[in-house]
This record gives sequence, structure tokens and C-alpha cells, in this order.
Amino acid sequence: MSINSFGRLFKVTTWGESHGPAIGCVIDGCPPGIRLTAQDIQIALDQRKPGTSKYVTQRREPDEVEILSGVFEDERTDGPRTTGTPISLMIKNVDQRSKDYSAIRDSYRPGHADITYDQKYGIRDYRGGGRSSARETACRVAAGAVAQKVLNHLYGNDIQITAYMTQMGPHFIDRTKMDIGEITNNLFWCPDPIAAKKWESVLDQARKSGSSLGAMIEVTASGFPAGLGAPVYGKLDGDLASAIMSINAVKSVEIGAGVEAARFSGEDNADEICIKDGKPHFLSNHSGGILGGISTGQDIIARFSVKPTSSILTPRRTITNDGQETTIQTKGRHDPCVGIRGVPVGAAMMALTLVDHALLQRGQCG
Amino acid sequence: MSINSFGRLFKVTTWGESHGPAIGCVIDGCPPGIRLTAQDIQIALDQRKPGTSKYVTQRREPDEVEILSGVFEDERTDGPRTTGTPISLMIKNVDQRSKDYSAIRDSYRPGHADITYDQKYGIRDYRGGGRSSARETACRVAAGAVAQKVLNHLYGNDIQITAYMTQMGPHFIDRTKMDIGEITNNLFWCPDPIAAKKWESVLDQARKSGSSLGAMIEVTASGFPAGLGAPVYGKLDGDLASAIMSINAVKSVEIGAGVEAARFSGEDNADEICIKDGKPHFLSNHSGGILGGISTGQDIIARFSVKPTSSILTPRRTITNDGQETTIQTKGRHDPCVGIRGVPVGAAMMALTLVDHALLQRGQCG
Amino acid sequence: MSINSFGRLFKVTTWGESHGPAIGCVIDGCPPGIRLTAQDIQIALDQRKPGTSKYVTQRREPDEVEILSGVFEDERTDGPRTTGTPISLMIKNVDQRSKDYSAIRDSYRPGHADITYDQKYGIRDYRGGGRSSARETACRVAAGAVAQKVLNHLYGNDIQITAYMTQMGPHFIDRTKMDIGEITNNLFWCPDPIAAKKWESVLDQARKSGSSLGAMIEVTASGFPAGLGAPVYGKLDGDLASAIMSINAVKSVEIGAGVEAARFSGEDNADEICIKDGKPHFLSNHSGGILGGISTGQDIIARFSVKPTSSILTPRRTITNDGQETTIQTKGRHDPCVGIRGVPVGAAMMALTLVDHALLQRGQCG
Amino acid sequence: MSINSFGRLFKVTTWGESHGPAIGCVIDGCPPGIRLTAQDIQIALDQRKPGTSKYVTQRREPDEVEILSGVFEDERTDGPRTTGTPISLMIKNVDQRSKDYSAIRDSYRPGHADITYDQKYGIRDYRGGGRSSARETACRVAAGAVAQKVLNHLYGNDIQITAYMTQMGPHFIDRTKMDIGEITNNLFWCPDPIAAKKWESVLDQARKSGSSLGAMIEVTASGFPAGLGAPVYGKLDGDLASAIMSINAVKSVEIGAGVEAARFSGEDNADEICIKDGKPHFLSNHSGGILGGISTGQDIIARFSVKPTSSILTPRRTITNDGQETTIQTKGRHDPCVGIRGVPVGAAMMALTLVDHALLQRGQCG
Repeated sequence: MSINSFGRLFKVTTWGESHGPAIGCVIDGCPPGIRLTAQDIQIALDQRKPGTSKYVTQRREPDEVEILSGVFEDERTDGPRTTGTPISLMIKNVDQRSKDYSAIRDSYRPGHADITYDQKYGIRDYRGGGRSSARETACRVAAGAVAQKVLNHLYGNDIQITAYMTQMGPHFIDRTKMDIGEITNNLFWCPDPIAAKKWESVLDQARKSGSSLGAMIEVTASGFPAGLGAPVYGKLDGDLASAIMSINAVKSVEIGAGVEAARFSGEDNADEICIKDGKPHFLSNHSGGILGGISTGQDIIARFSVKPTSSILTPRRTITNDGQETTIQTKGRHDPCVGIRGVPVGAAMMALTLVDHALLQRGQCG
Repeated sequence: MSINSFGRLFKVTTWGESHGPAIGCVIDGCPPGIRLTAQDIQIALDQRKPGTSKYVTQRREPDEVEILSGVFEDERTDGPRTTGTPISLMIKNVDQRSKDYSAIRDSYRPGHADITYDQKYGIRDYRGGGRSSARETACRVAAGAVAQKVLNHLYGNDIQITAYMTQMGPHFIDRTKMDIGEITNNLFWCPDPIAAKKWESVLDQARKSGSSLGAMIEVTASGFPAGLGAPVYGKLDGDLASAIMSINAVKSVEIGAGVEAARFSGEDNADEICIKDGKPHFLSNHSGGILGGISTGQDIIARFSVKPTSSILTPRRTITNDGQETTIQTKGRHDPCVGIRGVPVGAAMMALTLVDHALLQRGQCG
Repeated sequence: MSINSFGRLFKVTTWGESHGPAIGCVIDGCPPGIRLTAQDIQIALDQRKPGTSKYVTQRREPDEVEILSGVFEDERTDGPRTTGTPISLMIKNVDQRSKDYSAIRDSYRPGHADITYDQKYGIRDYRGGGRSSARETACRVAAGAVAQKVLNHLYGNDIQITAYMTQMGPHFIDRTKMDIGEITNNLFWCPDPIAAKKWESVLDQARKSGSSLGAMIEVTASGFPAGLGAPVYGKLDGDLASAIMSINAVKSVEIGAGVEAARFSGEDNADEICIKDGKPHFLSNHSGGILGGISTGQDIIARFSVKPTSSILTPRRTITNDGQETTIQTKGRHDPCVGIRGVPVGAAMMALTLVDHALLQRGQCG
Repeated sequence: MSINSFGRLFKVTTWGESHGPAIGCVIDGCPPGIRLTAQDIQIALDQRKPGTSKYVTQRREPDEVEILSGVFEDERTDGPRTTGTPISLMIKNVDQRSKDYSAIRDSYRPGHADITYDQKYGIRDYRGGGRSSARETACRVAAGAVAQKVLNHLYGNDIQITAYMTQMGPHFIDRTKMDIGEITNNLFWCPDPIAAKKWESVLDQARKSGSSLGAMIEVTASGFPAGLGAPVYGKLDGDLASAIMSINAVKSVEIGAGVEAARFSGEDNADEICIKDGKPHFLSNHSGGILGGISTGQDIIARFSVKPTSSILTPRRTITNDGQETTIQTKGRHDPCVGIRGVPVGAAMMALTLVDHALLQRGQCG
């Protein structure tokens, strides 16, 4: 029911505004006995934090996570472990310089949630986007790091969740040149080193001209067992779609063949099955590892588009709170491709969806 | 939490297998005092029912809905009304001819949920697909008809939810020729009469050759107020994504610009705002009527792909329950484009998502 | 969230009115592979059904349950089993003689929900109490029978849930004479044969004079493991309290020492622990088998009072729908002690609460 | 679903251990636009805080609440208001002196949750009771204060929720001498000044002798409208039962006549109705203001027993973690009547239950 929570058995509730004292989340339902330190979470957070490169927003946040509950170090044993009780995580907002917010207070940025928050609630924390800021996604990444620990506890260390960018604006990677090992060698999580090189200049240009670019991100999860997900409204793909679409600026979610499935014939689409090493083996993966809402044991593949930020340096037509027409433009530094920061968030949402279904599967099917 | 339910305040739980005695659903949370008869629901069901044309599966089901609870006709007043208590709907399965199921009992159809149900549960009702059959979507359409009544009660009769097919296999409509009035003039819910004509022969050919085709479907909701939807995990687009992705065979969900958003620049993407007739007016609708998870008052636009059925007449490689390699092919009549039946289901899921948020909005914001 | 459901992982949604075509429930989350027939459920239903003795209401309902989904008999195996998909149960209402309902249509019975349904919904199915009728509890008993099967599957056949009456009106059992074997030897589920004898004449008198009596019922669950239940809002006792208080006419729920705990000193109250047969053994059970919301492995003990029905033959002051003062009295046969029918319902709610926590424990703690 | 949350539309998730860095809660679903300051909450917290009198535990906690999100002061208006987004509250744990916990680390206190946490989770934060500490109830009181603000916003300032103690150990108040105005004139929230005087010496004696006493607490809510609560599993009394039973040490919940209802005849029990000032008026209130799970408009009355703490100075038999028999006794100051602190918690749970149903009623019935 709750509207600021995600998950059933591994339930994450996030809270916080961009310029309030802190942001954070509560994880309810984490299994007990799993080693967990703040450092485990910090590593994930450091990957997405603002100010990491010239391509992401310049706000300088240390993004230091504190574990306030749910983890305990028994003095007779070896290091902190989860206790099965709620895990409360908090990240203080440090870089909230006193600033003049009158522009975004009085006018609505086109393509932002400014107008809809006002339409719905009649009030909004306008400082830095308030609740609608991408800052909320730090909590997803933090919770995702805990989910990852649980998944490793359940399935070992051979499972792998990987997210990367396959398109920046009109520029695509060459899938024949894809090398997952490359994604940490560039600032865009790009698995194609040649594309990555080109994207650098594309993005530099967008940054300098005050424009912004959309992006396409792909997330794969490999090594997971068959049987995760539940018909009919708890389908793994249905939950993934909800998890990913809830990330700021996302406009599409695809599973496996995605939009291409519309073009297929039945002959093309069916992933034929044979036996390999004594186990079911699929000859293709148009299904994206999910059939009837349940994982097949193949790689689980999701893909999502991120729209370009509308905080750009070119003036745009808009209206004020009190119904006057005006124009608005962003001042100072802007974020030329918000999709970059969406990459680790996509991986986090995959981890959160999978851990929830892993616990559900254990509960319902033993 | 529940895995066979959809919605928060207007909650629908569906049940039933393709070849069991009946299918049905329970609607919990329907507001009281709304006029409702079985006929109101029957009209919607008749639009999606199997056997309607030569292009859909030949099972002959009357699909007669019975209202078993939650509606009452006070003898002092005028016709049956909802009482605020659970509405139980049942549709009997009539056309379950005794049949030989040994083929799909012993072997897994590639691209079907046969294998994953077995992997998850260790048991499956193999008759006609059991729970994973598209027959379940009749319950969605029935519940959607009730949702539509509630939406009209809340917002009047000017609201409109419309679904139509924009692509069949590799064949697209011409958006410049789009006319919503056309969608009931052909058997494909196609808004472009010229495309519809062409699709007829395309589909005839697919049917004759025993092949099948994918489809793309678009759903729009117009006339709805701003303010529906809730940040962060109860976003209107997040819930729509989950609702639509949970429909059988769907592989993608897009909102507004969808996958195209990845190609946009910030200048293109922002929907500028002006004042028209004293109210906010957007100069474009790339957002699909949703910003920050909340409706803007513009048309709400979602789009989804439906993969072609893999029940085709060409043999495909697969395996048996006990791990032997084999081939499988569908016998008799088959469904050349399951997307056709997905059209009213998409509209139903839009109605169910909107009514849930309409009640939530009323509860939380008064 | 839902308001007509009970449970988290083993979720039961009930529907139906006393004089509608049927009542029923949907069980979502039942584990797969458990043998289940309609007869398993029928046995439980037959124990509570109206018209069983001269002490319970005379409506003659066969109360035949039909399983509409979620159970499947694979033709290669041995008898029907649960499939993991929703189990839909339906009981047709047979004995709905055409009757004059104008009295309860126009006036509110004191102590009944007639007035509050009208106040809340502005409409009510007045025939036989509609949704507020004790008839709804048949669905609880049916679902409880399924829960019992799952519990036996999980914990074997040595577990035991037993409910019995300890007080009828001002008449108590003698706990020193308590013999659980006696409860099926009388019509009141009374474990004290001497009290049972006396209650017969007490109840005969109440019946003849058109009066009614309250009752106290106790439910014990033995053989269940420690570790069921979850702090803080998913406590086993918190869920039991909700489960039991939701039964019609219940006005109190006690766990273990219950109201007596208020009188205790700390010395009296603490259940001391020793080791017996190598396992923790408690020297008393004031806690009712629950500490901190989690089962201890001792007998789980709950107790609840059932108010006397206000459908009595003596006229009572009341008002009409349109605000006029009047009097009302029940005509014909009445139910002198509705608590009798509450006994199997209490056992069912214990089973439903335990099975839900059994699956939760398996999901969260493995 | 979640196990550390309470409520549907006004959902509270609490977190934190007694001796961790902090405790807190997240309120999801608070309506927007309601004035709220930390001071509003602090007033309620100050009433329950430890160290307030010689009768409650000596831990010295300032219990200062911080609002971390969900409240915003628009610089153009007048004071902070709720924004409709999650309200995060945090209370730091200040008085966590370094201490020797080896006794409660190694042995289980009889009547405490020490043993069941270990049985369930295999790990437990043994410092000061960890998650099972009554310290968690501070979060309930804080959330309850927010709920109270919302209730006043919805229903005005004439509504009143009052909690008081009616029994301490074997000593009862005299209901004929009850005066609600007295409850703040003594340290026990006792509405009978003569009883209060006597309880002082009773409790002094218990404190000196190292013993403890149980208590009975009553909560009434007056001025609330009819129509709150929902059949069948969302009954107002069912939710109250769950809310109250989830408070630490509570062993019973009664509504209205409660356990006494078992002794009543139907004539006694029915609350007759007449018309007064043009509105329905009940001649008695055995129902405790709830019929069929829905409020009648009368005073809503709940009552609960609190067991005496088993942290007493007399040695008790128990076992160690590794299965050895031993004895345990509390050292230093103890809490002679934990029920005293339960009084404001009971009021908070009433407020939380009512606000949730107030929003539900608005959502479902408009």
C-alpha cells in the first residue's frame, strides 16, 4: 500500500529532500546473520556520487552513509552482522549552500515535477527539486548494496548484476564490439571503448553549449536460478518495470527483445530449448530470461531510456505559480547527461527486485 | 504484498485457470452507491472474447459474467448499486472439450511459461496453459469495466480511455492518417484505415502459413485531472508500467516519448508551458502526461509491445519434463496475432491504475 | 492494505453477503504440491454449519464448498494438489427463502452493524445482515482448513489447534475438571462434562425465553516451533489479536494470562526456564507461548469473549432509517448463544495466523 | 506486508535499538499542508520520557526529536507545513553508558524476548533489550503526535483522545470517583485521586522491595464521526487490537464491555437507540463505540493490560545461551510499573488507528 516503499519481503522505504538535513531509507525484512558494514554500502555510493567527474552535476556531497540500526557486532564474534530488524541508513546533506531559490520557487521548469507537486499537494519544497530530486536515488543505491550482500549470501559470488550505457543521445554502441570489462574504463559506463571515446567529445560539446542528452541503459543479471517471480501481478518483469520506471526521468522499460518483439514473427521470437551439461539450455534469449513472469535461469535483461534533463541554459517558455507566462533557464553548471548517474541506480533496482523475489520464493516454495 | 492482486485502494485479486471450472476476480475497495449491472461489465467482455473473428483463437466461450457479491438493489430504489463491500465476479469456463493434453503435458513450448511454472512450483495445470493462459485477462477487462464506472462517477463522462494498435509485425500505422473513430471499423483496433486494410492480408497470410506476428499497442487517457500519482514508489508511470508489463506476452512499456527520449536533446524534450483559457497549457507532450510520477492534466499516454505467440505450426526444438530433447508444434487453429486481444486489456489496466490513484488522491489530499 | 483480506504471504480475501448468490474466498500464496480436496475443507465446514443442533440458528444450509482454482490433478499422479496459484473457494447460498425484510430494512437492530453500514456507505444489503452476517465466517473456516493442511505439511501431524468454550453467560467451566477429549461430546465444545450438562438447561431456557447469552472461548496451538512472529508490528500476538477481534461479536482478546496480567507481580509473572530433555523448558506459561511477539515453543494460548446476539424476542428501543424512534424485536427462531459457532472460527483464525508466520519465517530466516 | 510498519494510508515504519546510535520512524502518507514543528512532537515525547519521576526507569534521555524530511517552510508563508512526502523523525540515543552486558548477553531473562529473538534470528542486540526495548514506543508517541495534528485538521479541536490507568496490580480505581481532570495531577495517569494517593505507597513498596506490578489502561476517543472502520479484516476494533497488542508487555485488548460481554444476556448487551438533538443517541455503550467494525459516533473505548516487568531484583531460574541452567536477577534501578509509560503509548496507538481509517474513509467513501 505504501507509496514511498518498494518490495514485499525486503521492503525499502525512502525519505528525504534534496536540501533538507538528510536523506535515508529503512530496509525492513533483511535476513539476519549477514555481514554488513557501512563500508560495504559506501563503495556503491561512491560510484554514483555527484561531483565525480566533469560530466555530472557539480554539487560536492561526501555522501557518507551511516547505519543507524539493524546491524550489531556481538562482542564474542567477528564483525557486525544484520539482526533481522529494520536497517536504517542515513546520508547527511552537506552541500546545501544558502542560495537564491526564487526562480524555481516562482516558476515551473518545463519537464520537471515542479508543477505537478504543486498541483497535487499545494505545497512543495522547491530547494533543489526537494523530494523529486535525483538525490533520492542515493538511497536506492545504498539499499541496493545491502540487497547485493543478501543475494551473495543466498546464491554465492558467481551471480553478477551489471549495468551499462548503450546509447547517448543519437549515438549507439556497436554491440559487436561490446566488452563488459570496459565499463569502468570510461566515465559513461560504456562497454564499447570506441563509442566511449566519441561520447567524450559529444558530451563536452553538450556541456559547453548548455544542452543535454538522453541515454539508454541496460542491466543484466546473470547466475540467478530459475523460479524467481510470481504470476500474475507479482511477475518478475512487472516488478522490474515498476522498479525501473520509478527512477527519475525514465520513460521506457524493456525486457529482452523489448520494443523489437512487436516486429518479430513467432518463429523468430521463440527461444528454442535443448539440453546442455544435463540442464535446460536456451538457444536464444529474446525473453530476457523471464517467461510467464518467472525467471528461466538465463540472463535477466532489462533496458530503460532516460530523458535529457530540462535544466538547460537555453531559455524555455513556462508559467509562474500565479499563472503568468514567463521564460526560465538554468544558471551555472548543469548536468549534460543525467543518464550517467542512472546506471548504478538501474543495477540497484535489479538487485532490490531480485532479493525480494528470492525471499518470496523461499517463503512460498521452501 | 499479495502476488495475485493489483492496486492499493481499488484492489483486484484474480483467480482461475484456463480449463478449471471458472475464472474470476474480487474487487476490494470499490466506492459505494455506484450503479452497476452485469450488463455494464458484459459489454466490455464481449469486445475481447475469443472466437469473435477469424483472427482470434477459435475457442468458443460465451464469457458470461456473474456478479456474486458487493452489488445490491434496495427494493425502495432504482436498480443495483455497489455497496462498498467486495465485488466478486465469476466467468464460467464452458468450452473445455475433453482433449488430449499429453503433448504440452510432457514437453515445454518454447516462449511459453510451461517450463518456468514447473521450475518454480514443481507442478502445473497444463491444460490450455492453466494459470498462464491469456484467459486470465478476461478478469482484468471485467474489473476494468467496474473501474471505468467509478472513474465516470468521479470525473464525469468526458474522460476517455482509448487503446489501439499502432504496429503489427513490421507494419506501422501512418500517424498523419490516424483517426480514433476508425478503431471499431476493423478487426485490429487500427486507427489508420489504410493500414487496417493492408493488415488484413498480412494477417491472413500469417494465419494460413501457421505463423504469428507481434504488435504494438497504445493507450491514452484524456480528461483526467492533474495530481494523480504519488512520488516515489507509487508513481503513476511506475504503477502503469507494472500493470501493463503484467499482461501476458508484453515485453516493453513506454510512457510518452518512451524509447525515443534517449535520442532527444534537452531542448527537444522539455514540454514548454503557456496559459490557455486561464489554465496551464503544454506546447507538447513528450512526458506522456506524467511528470515526477504525477499526472499533469494532459493526455496520459502509454505504449506496449506484445510478442507473437510461439504456438505456431512450425516445429521448434524443445525438451521434455524429464530432460530429453524433442520438437514441438501446435496443432489445429492458432492465434496469428495475440496483440489484438491485448488492446482492451491495455485499456483496462489504464482504468485500474487511474481509479486506484484517484481514490488515493482523495484519501491523502482530500 | 486491502480491507477484506487477512495475512501477508498466505493471504485470504473473503467476499459475499448472507443472502446473495454465494459467499467465498480467494487464498493467495498457498505453497504448491500439497494434497487438497474439497472434502478436506468440507469436514471443517460441517462442524460449524447452521442448523446442526437446536442451539444454533435454524437456517438450513448445506454449505457445500467448491474449489474453483488452484488445485490440479496431474493425470500421471495421485490425487489433486495445490499448484501455488490462487485457490478460489465458493459456497452457494441455498436457503434464501423469499422473505419480508421490511423490519430490518427500515429499523436498526441495537447492537448490530445495521446502523454503521448505513452511516458509512449510505447503502446496505439488509437481507439477513448482508456482509455483516456471521455467514462470512464460513469462509474463514474453509480457509482455515487449507491452512491446517499447510501447517501439517510443514510441521507434521503432531501439531494441534484446539478451541473450546470456557464460559457461557455467567457460567464457567471448572478448570480442574478440564478434559479436551470431552469437547466433541457435547453441543457447546465444552471441555468440562459437568458444566456441559448444566449449560444444556441454561441454554434451553434462554432459547425458550427468547434471550441470548455471551461466551468465552479459548484456542490453544501446541507443537509449534519457537521463532514464529516478528517484531514490532508483525508480532504473533498482534496478528492474533487482529485476526480474532475481526470475528463478528468478539469484544476482547487475551494472550496467556490476559487481563489477569494486570494483577500480577513480577515474581508471579515471569515464566522461569530450565533445561528438560536437552531443550529449554518453561516452568509456567503466563506468556501464552509468546514473548516479544515471537513464539517460544510452548503452547500458544488465546482467549476471546463473544457478546450475546441482540436478535432477541424482547422488544428494544431503536430508530428508523429516517430518524424516527421505534421498537424492534426479532421474530421466529433466534440464536441463543452465537459463541457456539465462534469456536471453530477461533481455531481457523489461529491456523491462518500461524501459517502466515510460518511462511514469513521461512522467507526471512530460511 | 511489512512487519515493522503500522497503518495503510498513514503508514508508520519504526526502526532502532535501545543502545544503537538512534531510534526513529518514517511516516508515509501524511496529508499535505498541515502545520507541524518538532515542538508539536516534543510535547508528547516529554510526557513519556524515561527519568521523569522516581517511578520510571532512571535512564536519562533528553529524547529530542528531529524532523529530517517531509516538512517545509515556504519563505513566502507562515511556518513549516507537511508536504505530503515521507516525514522522517529521529531521536538520538544519548545515555548509552559503556556497561557490562555479559549477564543479559549470556542468560535469558524470564518473561523477556531475549530467548525468542535468539531462537528466531540466531543473533540479537543484547544491549538494553535491543529492538525489543520499550524505547521503541517513543517512536509510536512521536508518530501519534503527528496523527493527532492530522485528526485535528480533519475533525477540529473538539475531538479528544485520553488514556489513563484504571488498575495497578490488584488495586482498582473507583469508577464512581473517576475524574479525567485528575490524570495529570499524579504520576500514574490515575483518574481517581484517592486511588492515586494509595498507589503511591504501593509503588514505593514495590520499588523498594525490587518487585514490579502489572497495570490496566483505558483509552477513549470522543468526538469522532460514525463511519470509521471497514468490514471485514479492516475493522476498526481489529486494527485497534493489533495496534495495542503490539505494544510491549500488553497481554489483552478489550473493546467496550470487553471480557464482561461473555457474561451478558442479549437484553443487557444491546445498546438501545433513540433520537436526541435530531441525531441517533445510544442509551448505553457496551459496544465501545464500534459495531460491525465501524464507529458509531459514540466514545470509542479500548482497554489493555500490561504485565509487570520481569526485570526484578529477586533471582529467577533461567538458562544460558549454551543450554546451562542458571539464575538471573536485575541489578541497580528497575521499573516498578512499566504500565505507567504505556499510558501515552496507548493514546498514540488510538490516534494512529483513527487517522488511518479517517484517510481510508475519505478515499473510499469521499
